[in-house]
Amino acid sequence: MCGIFGIYSHEKSNIVKKVYYGLYALQHRGQEGAGIAVGNGKEIGFYKGLGLVPEVFSNKELQNLYGHIGVGHVRYSTTGRNTIENCQPFVVNSSFGKIAITHNGDIVNSKELKHELEKKGHIFVSTTDSEVIAQLLVRELLKNDDIITAVTNVTQKLNGAYSLLIIYDDTLIAIRDPNGFKPLCIGKDDGAYYFSSESCALDIVDVEFERDVAPGEMVVVDKNGLNTYKLPNAKEKASSCMFEYVYFARPDSVIDGVSVYEVRRNIGKILAREAPEEVDIVSPVPDSGIIFSQGYTEEAEVPYYEALIKNRYIGRTFILPTQEERDLAVRLKLNPVKYLLKDKKVMLIDDSIVRGTTSGKIMKMAKKAGAKKVHLRIGSPRIISPCFYGIDMATTKELIANSKTDEEIAEMIGADSVAYLSIEGLVEAIGRDDLCLACLNEEYPTDVSCKFECGNCKK
Amino acid sequence: MCGIFGIYSHEKSNIVKKVYYGLYALQHRGQEGAGIAVGNGKEIGFYKGLGLVPEVFSNKELQNLYGHIGVGHVRYSTTGRNTIENCQPFVVNSSFGKIAITHNGDIVNSKELKHELEKKGHIFVSTTDSEVIAQLLVRELLKNDDIITAVTNVTQKLNGAYSLLIIYDDTLIAIRDPNGFKPLCIGKDDGAYYFSSESCALDIVDVEFERDVAPGEMVVVDKNGLNTYKLPNAKEKASSCMFEYVYFARPDSVIDGVSVYEVRRNIGKILAREAPEEVDIVSPVPDSGIIFSQGYTEEAEVPYYEALIKNRYIGRTFILPTQEERDLAVRLKLNPVKYLLKDKKVMLIDDSIVRGTTSGKIMKMAKKAGAKKVHLRIGSPRIISPCFYGIDMATTKELIANSKTDEEIAEMIGADSVAYLSIEGLVEAIGRDDLCLACLNEEYPTDVSCKFECGNCKK
Amino acid sequence: MCGIFGIYSHEKSNIVKKVYYGLYALQHRGQEGAGIAVGNGKEIGFYKGLGLVPEVFSNKELQNLYGHIGVGHVRYSTTGRNTIENCQPFVVNSSFGKIAITHNGDIVNSKELKHELEKKGHIFVSTTDSEVIAQLLVRELLKNDDIITAVTNVTQKLNGAYSLLIIYDDTLIAIRDPNGFKPLCIGKDDGAYYFSSESCALDIVDVEFERDVAPGEMVVVDKNGLNTYKLPNAKEKASSCMFEYVYFARPDSVIDGVSVYEVRRNIGKILAREAPEEVDIVSPVPDSGIIFSQGYTEEAEVPYYEALIKNRYIGRTFILPTQEERDLAVRLKLNPVKYLLKDKKVMLIDDSIVRGTTSGKIMKMAKKAGAKKVHLRIGSPRIISPCFYGIDMATTKELIANSKTDEEIAEMIGADSVAYLSIEGLVEAIGRDDLCLACLNEEYPTDVSCKFECGNCKK
Amino acid sequence: MCGIFGIYSHEKSNIVKKVYYGLYALQHRGQEGAGIAVGNGKEIGFYKGLGLVPEVFSNKELQNLYGHIGVGHVRYSTTGRNTIENCQPFVVNSSFGKIAITHNGDIVNSKELKHELEKKGHIFVSTTDSEVIAQLLVRELLKNDDIITAVTNVTQKLNGAYSLLIIYDDTLIAIRDPNGFKPLCIGKDDGAYYFSSESCALDIVDVEFERDVAPGEMVVVDKNGLNTYKLPNAKEKASSCMFEYVYFARPDSVIDGVSVYEVRRNIGKILAREAPEEVDIVSPVPDSGIIFSQGYTEEAEVPYYEALIKNRYIGRTFILPTQEERDLAVRLKLNPVKYLLKDKKVMLIDDSIVRGTTSGKIMKMAKKAGAKKVHLRIGSPRIISPCFYGIDMATTKELIANSKTDEEIAEMIGADSVAYLSIEGLVEAIGRDDLCLACLNEEYPTDVSCKFECGNCKK
Repeated sequence: MCGIFGIYSHEKSNIVKKVYYGLYALQHRGQEGAGIAVGNGKEIGFYKGLGLVPEVFSNKELQNLYGHIGVGHVRYSTTGRNTIENCQPFVVNSSFGKIAITHNGDIVNSKELKHELEKKGHIFVSTTDSEVIAQLLVRELLKNDDIITAVTNVTQKLNGAYSLLIIYDDTLIAIRDPNGFKPLCIGKDDGAYYFSSESCALDIVDVEFERDVAPGEMVVVDKNGLNTYKLPNAKEKASSCMFEYVYFARPDSVIDGVSVYEVRRNIGKILAREAPEEVDIVSPVPDSGIIFSQGYTEEAEVPYYEALIKNRYIGRTFILPTQEERDLAVRLKLNPVKYLLKDKKVMLIDDSIVRGTTSGKIMKMAKKAGAKKVHLRIGSPRIISPCFYGIDMATTKELIANSKTDEEIAEMIGADSVAYLSIEGLVEAIGRDDLCLACLNEEYPTDVSCKFECGNCKK
Repeated sequence: MCGIFGIYSHEKSNIVKKVYYGLYALQHRGQEGAGIAVGNGKEIGFYKGLGLVPEVFSNKELQNLYGHIGVGHVRYSTTGRNTIENCQPFVVNSSFGKIAITHNGDIVNSKELKHELEKKGHIFVSTTDSEVIAQLLVRELLKNDDIITAVTNVTQKLNGAYSLLIIYDDTLIAIRDPNGFKPLCIGKDDGAYYFSSESCALDIVDVEFERDVAPGEMVVVDKNGLNTYKLPNAKEKASSCMFEYVYFARPDSVIDGVSVYEVRRNIGKILAREAPEEVDIVSPVPDSGIIFSQGYTEEAEVPYYEALIKNRYIGRTFILPTQEERDLAVRLKLNPVKYLLKDKKVMLIDDSIVRGTTSGKIMKMAKKAGAKKVHLRIGSPRIISPCFYGIDMATTKELIANSKTDEEIAEMIGADSVAYLSIEGLVEAIGRDDLCLACLNEEYPTDVSCKFECGNCKK
Repeated sequence: MCGIFGIYSHEKSNIVKKVYYGLYALQHRGQEGAGIAVGNGKEIGFYKGLGLVPEVFSNKELQNLYGHIGVGHVRYSTTGRNTIENCQPFVVNSSFGKIAITHNGDIVNSKELKHELEKKGHIFVSTTDSEVIAQLLVRELLKNDDIITAVTNVTQKLNGAYSLLIIYDDTLIAIRDPNGFKPLCIGKDDGAYYFSSESCALDIVDVEFERDVAPGEMVVVDKNGLNTYKLPNAKEKASSCMFEYVYFARPDSVIDGVSVYEVRRNIGKILAREAPEEVDIVSPVPDSGIIFSQGYTEEAEVPYYEALIKNRYIGRTFILPTQEERDLAVRLKLNPVKYLLKDKKVMLIDDSIVRGTTSGKIMKMAKKAGAKKVHLRIGSPRIISPCFYGIDMATTKELIANSKTDEEIAEMIGADSVAYLSIEGLVEAIGRDDLCLACLNEEYPTDVSCKFECGNCKK
Repeated sequence: MCGIFGIYSHEKSNIVKKVYYGLYALQHRGQEGAGIAVGNGKEIGFYKGLGLVPEVFSNKELQNLYGHIGVGHVRYSTTGRNTIENCQPFVVNSSFGKIAITHNGDIVNSKELKHELEKKGHIFVSTTDSEVIAQLLVRELLKNDDIITAVTNVTQKLNGAYSLLIIYDDTLIAIRDPNGFKPLCIGKDDGAYYFSSESCALDIVDVEFERDVAPGEMVVVDKNGLNTYKLPNAKEKASSCMFEYVYFARPDSVIDGVSVYEVRRNIGKILAREAPEEVDIVSPVPDSGIIFSQGYTEEAEVPYYEALIKNRYIGRTFILPTQEERDLAVRLKLNPVKYLLKDKKVMLIDDSIVRGTTSGKIMKMAKKAGAKKVHLRIGSPRIISPCFYGIDMATTKELIANSKTDEEIAEMIGADSVAYLSIEGLVEAIGRDDLCLACLNEEYPTDVSCKFECGNCKK
């Protein structure tokens, strides 16, 4: 995941607070680190740290930053340890002055590119793709000091997913990879252009959504305004990540013209059609299952209840319970409403089943609360193959759907039935035919073969 | 508000962690302070502090506490400054050893009692009712060292709302005032008795709900088991606070046999009947309006959407925005889903309108997002009179309903219509006739006349 | 120990910052807690917490306090656990309004007084003598509302050491017990009177030292100026604590007309005469031995070196070393200068030997650094009996001098000789005959017999 | 300044705790940041942060590091902002694996080297010399993969001061620049070799001092033991920084065979001879003047007193006083002992006069305390020229000695006389003829001309 946000103010007003608010609105895309770099056309100042946006930035840190061009990043760690070195923006000093880069996505061939650069004497202080891109960019600039040409040349070497925001001199550059894996959109008000991973952040800083950056498009904003360029390898047809609609993005965002909220509601409706079951009530596993369940209730005409109550005060300072207290810990986060479940046939809707442990505890709690039957529906198809474009492997590898049938899972977790959304259902729910479904059907939009035999390679 | 939780373990096991988890489940009843006192039959250890339960207690503080009798408290400041002195449990040393008291509610005549005690030479370090009760209790014990008699005598002097948990020697005493203003219930497992402001906390520590403490009942647990006593002034008919159902309690709690969740759903249905309006969608103002809206959707057969998205990461470390950034701050917390609102007639449901400022901003955002009509329904009747039994005056005093008609409010906040729940509707939704409705109809269940002319009296 | 500081400003200026600086200058008298209470003639505000003065108070806390009468306290825990309840000032509300009390010393009969009060129905939230005094004071005020009479009557019940500062109405009262155990002095500038445990704090707030409060004197400052009263039981001859000169007070303080610096230098000279030894250099064990050593060098005409270097950065956040790292930890705090010690006969001077463990490690380090001989002199006589007037028992009980001869100690710690200052030498060094020497010669200036057989009594 | 510490353990034991303690002992050399890198022959782990060693490292951070080769650094910011990027060790990934570098000193031509590297496409994330060295090293390794040759080649490009510790593979390399500007010494115990900026840190980890690294020496430790190499450009005669003896180093260190303590004592003696004055007492301005004053007292036969008492509790959390409180703030840190100063002719000894403000306040306080005469002696010669080898320019630029005579300074600060140590006196006190005295006499041991006209260049 990760989220990026950028601004170029033609009025030369200080945009640091707006970048901060933009990142706050994108906090759901990454909670492990945050950073902001701000340029004034000459110098670039920056600050970054581990944690949530308001943990990293107090007024003090914001006051030290000043400029009319800004980029920010919230970090979700896919590759590399969660250290401050791996936080973004990645800011470097070079022969061409300071450059700041933020990146959302995963470069499939970053390891190859890194090896080649290392063989030429380059060194790396982080494990981020941004650093690889920075090194490539400076090398291209040495060959050709036109930034447009240089950035274009860099993109021709990259294989994978990248939505990028780059500050260089008095220029802000936004790029979406040729497949358009990750979202990136443009906002505008009287004085400035805005770029954001999701449109919800534009809403929040009260800026009009202008349009999505097209797959394979490079947008360049400088004092003369906005110009757009098409990357030579831009694809005819995009391969946008379906997971943005299902899970990652905020429901108030619209990605490539499709409302995330509507997709999730559609999924709920399709689930009701694809795997119907006679039940008394439908209830989400909060928070992910909420909108799916609203669609389900509409289609199946079964009353909607929130029969599992989430404790809103559970935070990261929670004292880790002893082994014996584990069940208690799940219940502390999620308590079944006995009154609603007693003697009822219940449909629960969640977004995934990871190892099955938590799902199993939820089933057990629901049954103990008196539910006669508990059925589980999953608002995403089965994930069967790794993602090389930015989703955490550790998580998908453990997905129970890789190795078990619905019936086996149901038995294992103690549900009366389990069903996943079909791939066709997902495509129908989104209403687009230009999606990346590689983790569902193993059809990768780019070459993902690995040239290394290292074993601990990400592939 | 405030929440209290207590345990007496007959197996003499250390109950401090369970009190901690119980308080965690009651966190919604008070976020300003927390404390735990633990007794072993002789000594009482305690720790308290300002902030949320996990902010006050780390493993270190919990490890310093050990015993088989425990009481805990989460603080919501009604009277007095938010200082550590005003946090509970209130633990004192006396001629009769250590005593720990936790209190939920407000004693109407505490000021008179305090003055009388002061005239007899007593001094006070806090502004809590608990300290008044502690002083009265020790005086009664001097007259009659039977704790049951002494506590009974104390209660005969108290006018107002009090759910109390008291540790004395090897005894845990639980009392609910004669009117039963505030909830208090009993749980039980093989080895221990539990007391909690709400049944949800019993669920969470995985203990069976036994029954509610009756209005005017005193329950005494010691090594011989549980005994119950009826206070001499116990009322025939209770006057339970209706706000517990409407707003305070967690929806997974059942109070005096009535499910909080069901009450809120009923309110939504009744709102749909009492003030119908032709709309395309109904949406809650999160989080308070969610269950009301689910009832509304069922009754009015209008689709349910969550058209205002709450940012789950907004916490207390949020940087205060400048005056110009205030609108932005509301939007950061609550963003309208344009896709859902555009060209729609919308019904929003909230639990109250305080000053009208936030409601006004929400109406404005909804209209800007494209809503054709925005109607507002409030899931509680109009509050017209102060509460002397434990609800913050500062808040009710500012309630806009005191002085304006529905139409005036609608105009002020920019809504197309506004309607509150009727008192009859509320009573129907709860299904009880033994409620305190004083803040709605000025019929106070106890004498609330004030003997002082001080001006800064709470009355 | 503990330190107290107070101000009454006739110009009605806000004195909170000055109390803060005064406490900062008294920080050496107590590092476990700090508090300030400020009155405006009507209300008293206060704040207190655990830790050093600058840890407890930031600008935020100071800004919440405002008034022209103030008292402050730094806490060193003699009796009771180190909890916030035991921090001072102790502020109470009573029939006579708010009262704030700070206390330095130990009341010998506080336990008896507390029991008597408890029998009358009083309760206690702390284990401080200040709370006992507060309760007694309010009872006396009920009998006789003249504060002078009431305070006088209270003092007649107290046995032990007490330097007190009390805010009552628009009055600041300073009292030094009849024996004058603990120091207390008065400062004055154009607009205000100041009271401080030590004169150094007057220097630091740039106020002229006026005089010491006399033993058995009560000084009362109100809008009419300063008045003085003699307690009925004021002693003819004081019994001032000799430890203030030897160890507690800052060297820049003058107590009862005698310079602390000069006393310590005298001690060094007398040590040189009482237990001479042929050595090449004299060196302090820092920091306590520094001024003793300067006196020694002058008398013995032996060069002065600081041959043990203290690491100024060792603070309380130090990571506790494992058992194997203990020697390393001592060396981290105190490193011998090999260059100075090699092949030398060395005289080290310290202020005490507690368990002998640290002294033993120092001797070992000095020998390992090449010292031919290492002699140790102690700048205080042997302590053989507990103090009931305010010095920590835990420490004195473990003092090695209780049970071993100089020769035995020398052998145990690996020194070539050990000698303590004689009692006569101490008296000569101070130059006063009105000292409390009870811990040295068991002659207690007040009755210290205990009426309780409890075992865990402080006596 | 800055301090570095390194270990290679042949027993393969985990050395991270020892590096931590070593850094603790070098804390006086830098308080702005700290870091440790630990290698196991393959991987290098590291952690660094802003602040004091115990602020940066808790047990948690130390437990995450494990290996038998370690280097650590305490940071004092000479060049560049105080950010985490500028903390050391500087750890990079390269074609040759991970490399960790720590550096004490200042590379005069780092700007030129950086520009050359940037022109070849290298980028920089920090402003440290360590990063320049890292980039040069990797380029050399590409040409010649023998690490000894590569490091040697790098040093031939460096002009300036550098004591370096480098981890590469299973090798620890220690280098002292050809002039030996900055100290570096070797320790040894049965299982390991140690390297430290100062010998005091070897004492503290209880390791025998072996010898100093010679100017222009490269020491390489690997599994086969220790080997030494002479850099081609090693100078015949060193130019060691005289300030290490006068101010920077701890007195318990011995640098290049000369005791820091003895040098400071000699300086005091020479001051007494060079600028004698009839006084009653001599007193240091603590802490810097203490050892100078001890030498002075011995030579001048004037009694030694510490007439200015330092508050040991003043830390970094100190609340900044308002303008009116500035005098108070100086007195809070440093209080004159009136008893000692009254009617005395006093000699004060300090290590420098920066802007004269603080000195002026000290003079004023001493006079107000009653001193008849106050003379000031400075234990260092006048600094007239900037240092390019690692001392903060900002400080020296403001040194009052640049522009005023002794008499002018005395008048300005209100002293009865002022005198600095002579350069000859300094050389005599140290007893070495191979010193860098450039800041005193403008004779720079290396070319310090600047090739840039940038203006904001460090030269």
